[in-house]
Amino acid sequence: MTLDRSRLRWNGWGPVDQPDPTVARPGIWSLLADALALEGPLPLTPAASLDATRISRPLGASLVTRLEDVVGQGHVLIDALSRASRARGKSYLDLVTLRKGDASAAPAAVVLPEGAEQVLALFRLAAATGLKLVPTGGGSSVVGGVGGPAESAWLAVDTSRMDRLLALDETDHTATFGAGIDGPSLEAALNARGFTLGHFPQSYRHSTLGGWIAASGAGQQSSRYGRPHDWLVSAEVVTPSGLWRTEAFPRSAAGPRLGMLVIGSEGTLGVVTEATVRVRRVPETRDYRGYLFPDFASGAGAIRACVQDGVPAAMLRLSDADETRFLRAVSSLGKRPSVAARVTALYLRARGVADQPSLLVAGFEGGRREVRRTRRAAERHIARLGGVAVGSGPGRSWLRSRFDGPALRDPLLGRGIGIDSLETATRWSNLPALYHAVRQAVETAITRQARTGGRGVVMTHISHSYPEGASLYFTFVFAQRLGEEIEQWQAIKQAASATIVAHGGTISHHHGVGEDHLPWFGAEKGETGLALLRALKTALDPQELLNPGKLIP
Amino acid sequence: MTLDRSRLRWNGWGPVDQPDPTVARPGIWSLLADALALEGPLPLTPAASLDATRISRPLGASLVTRLEDVVGQGHVLIDALSRASRARGKSYLDLVTLRKGDASAAPAAVVLPEGAEQVLALFRLAAATGLKLVPTGGGSSVVGGVGGPAESAWLAVDTSRMDRLLALDETDHTATFGAGIDGPSLEAALNARGFTLGHFPQSYRHSTLGGWIAASGAGQQSSRYGRPHDWLVSAEVVTPSGLWRTEAFPRSAAGPRLGMLVIGSEGTLGVVTEATVRVRRVPETRDYRGYLFPDFASGAGAIRACVQDGVPAAMLRLSDADETRFLRAVSSLGKRPSVAARVTALYLRARGVADQPSLLVAGFEGGRREVRRTRRAAERHIARLGGVAVGSGPGRSWLRSRFDGPALRDPLLGRGIGIDSLETATRWSNLPALYHAVRQAVETAITRQARTGGRGVVMTHISHSYPEGASLYFTFVFAQRLGEEIEQWQAIKQAASATIVAHGGTISHHHGVGEDHLPWFGAEKGETGLALLRALKTALDPQELLNPGKLIP
Repeated sequence: MTLDRSRLRWNGWGPVDQPDPTVARPGIWSLLADALALEGPLPLTPAASLDATRISRPLGASLVTRLEDVVGQGHVLIDALSRASRARGKSYLDLVTLRKGDASAAPAAVVLPEGAEQVLALFRLAAATGLKLVPTGGGSSVVGGVGGPAESAWLAVDTSRMDRLLALDETDHTATFGAGIDGPSLEAALNARGFTLGHFPQSYRHSTLGGWIAASGAGQQSSRYGRPHDWLVSAEVVTPSGLWRTEAFPRSAAGPRLGMLVIGSEGTLGVVTEATVRVRRVPETRDYRGYLFPDFASGAGAIRACVQDGVPAAMLRLSDADETRFLRAVSSLGKRPSVAARVTALYLRARGVADQPSLLVAGFEGGRREVRRTRRAAERHIARLGGVAVGSGPGRSWLRSRFDGPALRDPLLGRGIGIDSLETATRWSNLPALYHAVRQAVETAITRQARTGGRGVVMTHISHSYPEGASLYFTFVFAQRLGEEIEQWQAIKQAASATIVAHGGTISHHHGVGEDHLPWFGAEKGETGLALLRALKTALDPQELLNPGKLIP
Repeated sequence: MTLDRSRLRWNGWGPVDQPDPTVARPGIWSLLADALALEGPLPLTPAASLDATRISRPLGASLVTRLEDVVGQGHVLIDALSRASRARGKSYLDLVTLRKGDASAAPAAVVLPEGAEQVLALFRLAAATGLKLVPTGGGSSVVGGVGGPAESAWLAVDTSRMDRLLALDETDHTATFGAGIDGPSLEAALNARGFTLGHFPQSYRHSTLGGWIAASGAGQQSSRYGRPHDWLVSAEVVTPSGLWRTEAFPRSAAGPRLGMLVIGSEGTLGVVTEATVRVRRVPETRDYRGYLFPDFASGAGAIRACVQDGVPAAMLRLSDADETRFLRAVSSLGKRPSVAARVTALYLRARGVADQPSLLVAGFEGGRREVRRTRRAAERHIARLGGVAVGSGPGRSWLRSRFDGPALRDPLLGRGIGIDSLETATRWSNLPALYHAVRQAVETAITRQARTGGRGVVMTHISHSYPEGASLYFTFVFAQRLGEEIEQWQAIKQAASATIVAHGGTISHHHGVGEDHLPWFGAEKGETGLALLRALKTALDPQELLNPGKLIP
């Protein structure tokens, strides 16, 4: 198996042996204490050990035997670590709950089928026994998308044995994989033949192809490589009602393209066992650079100009002034301001970029000529909107740490500091109002929920852009109200989500719905949308064997 | 109303006063007689007049009054012309049937609602009266997608009063229209503000935005402007169960994007009353040119190289040798071979392009610099695959006549000559096999079904291409077996469709399903696909008020 969940943290992000990034930068603690206006030393708030953790009962021996008859010996796991690892995902609520020693929602067993036939057999067994099935890939959902029902025993159906490149067609530029393959293994298999999928969500290192499809995420370079809607050709989906091979034609006018329904279905309609995806040649070169804008609005204007003009950048990622300042502060920790930095500051001031600049990291990929041309086309818009090139340093730095952000969460949670993110998308004309409203709502909610005197840090960036609009990604940091961490977070989340909905944003651009966004999902889809989802669910899963309670109420 | 159906032929293609293209080129008759190996003069096979046509009974006066209470006086039509015009679409079967004087499937009335509220009221009236409702836009389906049930009285719900530009957002590059607006009016409204949708199906002059969405078509420049899946942001759809506003966010990970189900639903799920679409700036310039390849395969290879390399051409349209030869013969009718033409022929021979070349018409649109760059990028692939530039003549010629092809059908049908087209799409690796198999099947079927000694002409082009595959568009011409026109055509269609399915093509790339493709639709969607469609239909239209018998069996 390319994805070994036993080497990932059961109650945190990433591999068990992941280095603590605060060790190399101890100055981060005083930086955070300053930013959050905290007095006195930070508390120590360690996570409960697995031994001290409450966990649901494992599956009985006779059922284990019946499962083993389906998937083979060694592929049914009932040990505490295996089950605790699949109890929850990686949302703030998940981590806080697990760190408190609560894995009571863990599956009764983890079962690892290989191939559609075994999954079909699991559904038969579920129908006969009343066990519920919940598919899981890398388990990296940050919105409560992983986990089973509290009220009944459930099995985590782990797809990670289905992890092979099954076909690569160099004429059609398509590849078929087992859906349980993880990001690095998928890219390695493609890269060896000169191809790439180019899907790099922040969870890339330990999330799976099937999870990317089910959760409808977007990679960091989706401007070039697309989202699952763009790169998914077809899927093999095992539903409780039987095998479903979705439409595989390049395009067709023969009725609605039903296979698209799998994208974003979050494991409620079936288990994705195989997927055929569009792949591209590995780009000859890539060029990532930084540009500073006088403010967020002018940077957003440059991005809009680029995408509406069809400039094929791979990534245009714009941080607002608060995020730009925070990222700079973190990256300069322990360093003295260099002469070069001071000269740069003077130069920027002379060019009209104020003290609160907004950083754009722009990425270009493709042939050398194409990359040069695309960059120049982007730079015309950037210059027109007042952006100033600051070289490839920010690009290199972004590429180096592109998957590292979430690694900060575990150490922060160990010192009473909460960090979470949320995201939305809206049209360009609505972006400024939504941006200000959500920032304000999160800041106010943090202050209201804070320990005396504390305040929050709210940072924002645009990560994905389209001709008619863009996403907004908010990261917020706050001192935890110890003993009431869940209530505190719920109040902040509630304020942010209500504001997003009231101001015309989607409840999620790429994180998905999970449990965290379910209260706002119905209003977004509308009565008719919900009726259609229920109809699809009932058609495929009339007995509610699969992922009950998720997505489709 | 921008679309005036009373000015369109009720039993043919295009406007009533459309010039007969064979008048200017009388030589076409001997050209066709030669090509089809026909002996003797062509028969005269005129269409029946409307007076001599059987037509269903009109709606009774009391129901007309009830309808008028909903849509207003003057918006319920029961005259024979209005009803015969909506009896059928523009498929071969439709035209042959209407020309025989059979409009027995006509609606009992044509009703023209304005706005969602009136459509909702029509559904209530339908539920109360047992009348069925069938939405219609321009009525230009060429696969039997237009028309109502034979067994019960039905109303054609004509959307053409909903024909206004409702909003154009110059920041977001989106526009909202009433769904009944026709192509030229839509483009005129956008062009006046510097924008374009860029959707130009061959029916463009008299088809509607709502029809484009419902039928999932593709415009001639879909490589640049996309299909409805690409340009539809959101729709207002009136379903029998209520109003449905589909998701309007640029992108969202909040569940499956259900609004996409409207595309290709062929009027079975609801009546599209409004749609918001992505628009682009009118391109600064366009450049359409011809290139000749030694054969179809090398031309296809050049197209594949372009799309897989991301060369943003607006159109790459490749005719096979038979189509190239036929188009040249038609365009040189009545002209003596010029010196230039003979010099060109010698030049081509010297460059290795044989006597049976394959013509690529390539179109580039955008800023001047972009167009030049894109053309050069395409020409690198074209040259590598043996293509030779033959100037802008073929491009100009294609642009001039881009919507004119179907105008030939009516005069040909008046002389006992049938002409029809069918289309499919498949992956590149399967394209050669599918191409040869379908050509062969159609040729054989025509010969088998011909009058003694006759043979068919089968011409093929690639009109739309994608990274993993392309469409194939077949036009076939044959002498009609008079008195048995329908059986003859059914045999040819059956042979072609069975071959497409057996050889891995979709039953339609952009014409849709209609009645003509329904027998093959189920196999293409599979058991699960059909179950999902039925579930959607039942959720929205439990009483089967809307378009019964179509698409969803």
